[in-house]
Amino acid sequence: MRYLTAGESHGPQLTAIIEGLPSNLELTAEAVNRDLSRRQGGYGRGRRMQIEKDTVEITAGVRHGKTIGAPVALTVTNDDWKHWTKIMGIEPLPEDVDPDDIKRRVTRPRPGHADLVGGMKYGHRDLRNVLERSSARETTMRVAVGSVAKSFLKALGIEVTAHVAEIGGVKADMTLRNGKTVNEIREIASADDVYCIDPEASEKMKQAIDDAKAAGNSIGGVVEVIVDGCPPGVGSYVQYDRKLDSKIAGAMVSINAFKGVEFGLGFEMARLPGSEVHDEIEWTEEDGYRRRTNNLGGFEGGMTTGMPIVVRGVMKPIPTLYKPLESVDIDTKEPFKASIERSDSCAVPAASVVAEHVVAWEVAKAISETFHSDTIEGLKKNIGEFLAYAREF
Amino acid sequence: MRYLTAGESHGPQLTAIIEGLPSNLELTAEAVNRDLSRRQGGYGRGRRMQIEKDTVEITAGVRHGKTIGAPVALTVTNDDWKHWTKIMGIEPLPEDVDPDDIKRRVTRPRPGHADLVGGMKYGHRDLRNVLERSSARETTMRVAVGSVAKSFLKALGIEVTAHVAEIGGVKADMTLRNGKTVNEIREIASADDVYCIDPEASEKMKQAIDDAKAAGNSIGGVVEVIVDGCPPGVGSYVQYDRKLDSKIAGAMVSINAFKGVEFGLGFEMARLPGSEVHDEIEWTEEDGYRRRTNNLGGFEGGMTTGMPIVVRGVMKPIPTLYKPLESVDIDTKEPFKASIERSDSCAVPAASVVAEHVVAWEVAKAISETFHSDTIEGLKKNIGEFLAYAREF
Amino acid sequence: MRYLTAGESHGPQLTAIIEGLPSNLELTAEAVNRDLSRRQGGYGRGRRMQIEKDTVEITAGVRHGKTIGAPVALTVTNDDWKHWTKIMGIEPLPEDVDPDDIKRRVTRPRPGHADLVGGMKYGHRDLRNVLERSSARETTMRVAVGSVAKSFLKALGIEVTAHVAEIGGVKADMTLRNGKTVNEIREIASADDVYCIDPEASEKMKQAIDDAKAAGNSIGGVVEVIVDGCPPGVGSYVQYDRKLDSKIAGAMVSINAFKGVEFGLGFEMARLPGSEVHDEIEWTEEDGYRRRTNNLGGFEGGMTTGMPIVVRGVMKPIPTLYKPLESVDIDTKEPFKASIERSDSCAVPAASVVAEHVVAWEVAKAISETFHSDTIEGLKKNIGEFLAYAREF
Amino acid sequence: MRYLTAGESHGPQLTAIIEGLPSNLELTAEAVNRDLSRRQGGYGRGRRMQIEKDTVEITAGVRHGKTIGAPVALTVTNDDWKHWTKIMGIEPLPEDVDPDDIKRRVTRPRPGHADLVGGMKYGHRDLRNVLERSSARETTMRVAVGSVAKSFLKALGIEVTAHVAEIGGVKADMTLRNGKTVNEIREIASADDVYCIDPEASEKMKQAIDDAKAAGNSIGGVVEVIVDGCPPGVGSYVQYDRKLDSKIAGAMVSINAFKGVEFGLGFEMARLPGSEVHDEIEWTEEDGYRRRTNNLGGFEGGMTTGMPIVVRGVMKPIPTLYKPLESVDIDTKEPFKASIERSDSCAVPAASVVAEHVVAWEVAKAISETFHSDTIEGLKKNIGEFLAYAREF
Repeated sequence: MRYLTAGESHGPQLTAIIEGLPSNLELTAEAVNRDLSRRQGGYGRGRRMQIEKDTVEITAGVRHGKTIGAPVALTVTNDDWKHWTKIMGIEPLPEDVDPDDIKRRVTRPRPGHADLVGGMKYGHRDLRNVLERSSARETTMRVAVGSVAKSFLKALGIEVTAHVAEIGGVKADMTLRNGKTVNEIREIASADDVYCIDPEASEKMKQAIDDAKAAGNSIGGVVEVIVDGCPPGVGSYVQYDRKLDSKIAGAMVSINAFKGVEFGLGFEMARLPGSEVHDEIEWTEEDGYRRRTNNLGGFEGGMTTGMPIVVRGVMKPIPTLYKPLESVDIDTKEPFKASIERSDSCAVPAASVVAEHVVAWEVAKAISETFHSDTIEGLKKNIGEFLAYAREF
Repeated sequence: MRYLTAGESHGPQLTAIIEGLPSNLELTAEAVNRDLSRRQGGYGRGRRMQIEKDTVEITAGVRHGKTIGAPVALTVTNDDWKHWTKIMGIEPLPEDVDPDDIKRRVTRPRPGHADLVGGMKYGHRDLRNVLERSSARETTMRVAVGSVAKSFLKALGIEVTAHVAEIGGVKADMTLRNGKTVNEIREIASADDVYCIDPEASEKMKQAIDDAKAAGNSIGGVVEVIVDGCPPGVGSYVQYDRKLDSKIAGAMVSINAFKGVEFGLGFEMARLPGSEVHDEIEWTEEDGYRRRTNNLGGFEGGMTTGMPIVVRGVMKPIPTLYKPLESVDIDTKEPFKASIERSDSCAVPAASVVAEHVVAWEVAKAISETFHSDTIEGLKKNIGEFLAYAREF
Repeated sequence: MRYLTAGESHGPQLTAIIEGLPSNLELTAEAVNRDLSRRQGGYGRGRRMQIEKDTVEITAGVRHGKTIGAPVALTVTNDDWKHWTKIMGIEPLPEDVDPDDIKRRVTRPRPGHADLVGGMKYGHRDLRNVLERSSARETTMRVAVGSVAKSFLKALGIEVTAHVAEIGGVKADMTLRNGKTVNEIREIASADDVYCIDPEASEKMKQAIDDAKAAGNSIGGVVEVIVDGCPPGVGSYVQYDRKLDSKIAGAMVSINAFKGVEFGLGFEMARLPGSEVHDEIEWTEEDGYRRRTNNLGGFEGGMTTGMPIVVRGVMKPIPTLYKPLESVDIDTKEPFKASIERSDSCAVPAASVVAEHVVAWEVAKAISETFHSDTIEGLKKNIGEFLAYAREF
Repeated sequence: MRYLTAGESHGPQLTAIIEGLPSNLELTAEAVNRDLSRRQGGYGRGRRMQIEKDTVEITAGVRHGKTIGAPVALTVTNDDWKHWTKIMGIEPLPEDVDPDDIKRRVTRPRPGHADLVGGMKYGHRDLRNVLERSSARETTMRVAVGSVAKSFLKALGIEVTAHVAEIGGVKADMTLRNGKTVNEIREIASADDVYCIDPEASEKMKQAIDDAKAAGNSIGGVVEVIVDGCPPGVGSYVQYDRKLDSKIAGAMVSINAFKGVEFGLGFEMARLPGSEVHDEIEWTEEDGYRRRTNNLGGFEGGMTTGMPIVVRGVMKPIPTLYKPLESVDIDTKEPFKASIERSDSCAVPAASVVAEHVVAWEVAKAISETFHSDTIEGLKKNIGEFLAYAREF
């Protein structure tokens, strides 16, 4: 399984092609749209999220609601495109048009964005050519692709969800997730304004967002993704680049603005003795092998253990601030204050949805390789047989 | 550039093949051996490190001290192999030998290791077949490969080093690294028993290691890798899987026992407002563009900014403990206490060396793609020209 | 550079995403459409080619006529889709609909097509789920993608074309291409009904096509692709999977119905002594190194030599015949005669266009890696400098 | 499954690492050595083959005769190395040594070899740095790797062999292979001096080799590889780069001196009507689906059909000739006659062994993906179940 995405923030549409899905997987645009809608929700979003409601169209690979084994193509139209056809036009400009009249050329790179370095790299003196693609708008397609991955996982009895663990220094009580199923956590988080399962913390988070907004500032946070029902033995220790936790870590940091990732107890493991970290093993007739705890977040030796995957990522505050940062105009080399008129002050809730989906993709891909079948029924069978065997191992 | 490693902990040798290096890069076994030796040092190591001094042999791809563009093969012989030829023999056992006499069969999976899940996955009821490859012994070759990458980077004016930021809850004063060059940090860290640049913290870290050892326990920690001199624009935002910070994150978590990674201010970014996080941009005639701070750890939009790459990884405490953890014998399904006779109590200093080398590899690989040339001189030229251009951009 | 395609023969649209193109490459839908139109031409095509004129839409990665470094997305709408919305509908069927009423279910696999094996592999008892994707309709997108690659190559001074060397046993006089430039060959071939540069042979080929048609049969042929202006040293001998001729061979055989490929003198080399095969080397002040002949078709050691790349592929006769072949209904296991009402009797001219484009892609990709730059100007400069150096080597 | 090889023709050793093999596959050095020995046999070889008998050592990934899932490392020592330690030394030359005294520097590129272009590409003015790696010596490791693949295939009931179809214009009677099993063909071919199954042709081939030798010339030929027992549905039509015949074509052309490849009737399909090309389908209770003929060489839609894979490759005559070709000295730019003292005059029999092994690798890799399991028993089970299902499909 692999995929590519394309599309600019103010271009006509976003596109993704997913290759390698098994046949006979049930897949509808509705399921994807529900996830896209969650990505657009969350307290603290700016205006664009309200005006533009993303909906996906499936244009290949699905027939009468089921995959046929062929690549799946997804399209999300940018409703806003009609206002941008000149600025972002695909066709060459007519000779008699002054490009500067039309381009809304950007010469002022924003700190914390790809603007400056992207301009250097691709030789763009109009930084719009950078920001149109480096924009977090692209995460729309990562959610769409990950939503397909979640349908794949769901068909195999594996559930994924995310919730917000921290915003602007306000931490959720993480013990509240213990004892809850992934579906319960999803339900509670989805109903909350900031996708947090701790109602008290949620209130404080909203306050923190309001405060940041009032101060013309922005705040970041921490999101957690949980995957339940994954069979053991996905990923491998035999070569450095086959460890699944490594791939998930890479995927988390590939999300716009994510600057760190940790599994299970994470960075706390630097402070705890080994005896309080490692998960003891037990065996019962009913359940086979299991761990008494899940401090390692579902991984040993780069492989899933059969316990839930628990992974958190940290998102930096959105770099587009009302409170200006200093930068330099690339034409004049003069300093300027990078202030803007409107922006989100916190995108952490939405980012939790993105994180859920990029993790889902990595897990789905790894499962597809480990228990490979060209049909979803074959995958189900392969996993079922392995689980029965593993129980008695 | 790509590589594969092979070799079991008690097999005859470890092997690596590195493909895609440019020609004319100076490369000697001595340089690699210095790094292997650093990996074997560090306070708190057990006996094996003393008895076995790793040395690499280059067996292909280098002629008269320089690469020729062909794949480079590296071999590290296991001196210990002579005591393991029966247990780990490659050839089929003679018919008249009882395998149980010879195999030192392992049926008791250790919590925190790949033993149990690896056994299930590969159908090994002798878990030695798992632990021989999942052992951290493999990091020897990752250091060897990374050492070659460091020679590559050094030839291009890029330096990499690592130091220990935290052990068992004792944190180094990280401001001590500010204002120091990578070479100075390397020198100070290398001279310290635990590869820490803060002498006071170093003493406390050693005490923590001694305490853990006395208690039959183990402790983990945090290591930091710094890459200086990397040109801007390495990595790309145009597709999710081309971001260099994402690849470095994946590489860090692929190190045995690493459970998290963060860049620049890392998880602290969840607690700080945007105005204190993003690095303001300035321009001067002498230096061109630069950032006033480096809170983002050298990355924007998945690309290097030209500022030092700063990345930290957390290592869990070694799971092999004197203080026993509970597990289950796979033959009898009876519980047992997983105690062992001897082990390291802390491998964080050595792990910092491993981290340095896996990061070096990822950076070297990305640079080789961005400024590609088939010769090291060509790479130098391409980077030099880009830097001159970027200064005036 | 990499790409994925998606889309079914009678689905709503075909889609491709191309990733890794440099910025600032001039790219228009018009250029692609010209190539798509050539693919739809050629004597001997059936009705569909007439009714449906493919045009591409660029939906991402291009702004005002130039690439911006971001992925390029291409869409070709299937005009025919309106007649197939029920049969090929994406959404699940309503409960009250009998699937058999709607699906035009196919249970009779055609020999020479993917139908039977594809059905087994993906568990499709309606073989339409196979043939919709395995159809040569997919080559539309390979031409579109290759057309982008040709724009890339053209910007670097490299030209690609194809012509028909043989149809149904009628061979063109291949000496007619000697002394002609690629542009001349393209012009002559494009103007010919069967894309053949030998007018006499062309007449006979048309006759052969007419004869085959009259007999309810089909015929295949051989096409040749020529790439001129490629610098030496593209591809490498250092690892088995980096040879460019190997990649071109793989690409040719990946075209629907292609069953063989050969370079330069090709299979004739089995009959000639070495002294008549290898291309002698000479050097002149004006031109630097060159070969007296080009029997090896532009490759030594898997690398381009600087001489034109000359590669031929053989296409089997179209398997859909008026003259029935025997097969078996998968429901009843009863034999039946696989006859059809209408079909092309020869697709070799169109296939030559496809071959041109898949070769263009492989060459463009390899050049992009060897002389890598993130901008097309950088690539031009890198190649120019290498050519100057190689002349004096 | 993937692999890398390393090693120079006169370096200390050749090395390969194979990654991704399932566990519990029986593997011994003896089996590999038998295949290496076949590669060194064949009428018409020069002296080196006699003096140097290749034997492989397995240094990782195998324990007591079975794979453990870990990467397999293979080493072949170059016995000749002791005479080349100065010329090919790995360590830098001492300061007081004149490199020209020691290097046997090569400045005269041989037509038909990688020498000239390789020198340009990697900036080597000593062309020995090219020829040491571009030498066909490397095919030793491709045979070793392919031999492991054959053990993998054999365990799954799939047999591979090769035989010589043509040498220097002398063609074997290919109908002689009809009705013979792969094992019979292997036995007959292995016993023949030129690995040809047609005794009459074999005599003429030897005569042709003798004649070429006497004339100071060289001759090429055609080899055929047959794979029997491969299940249907390996490879896929859903994306252009997943077709197995495409991969096999690429692999064949990646063999040193191979210039073309064809499947089944191959280039003859350009001369035959469709009705004589496509393989009719039938079904019987005992055998399930099968084809009446195998003109397509075992592939439809890039997937195996269950019929034997039949693929041929053409090898150009060895370019190192007694009869001199003209070339240019890179130092003086003066022409010279590229004559040599001794060489093989025909390497086609050996090349047939190489072809057998590179095809085996591609088939094994594709099977490993399609019917993936981490254990060889799992693969057997998956294939067995698919075959039973496909029979009744």
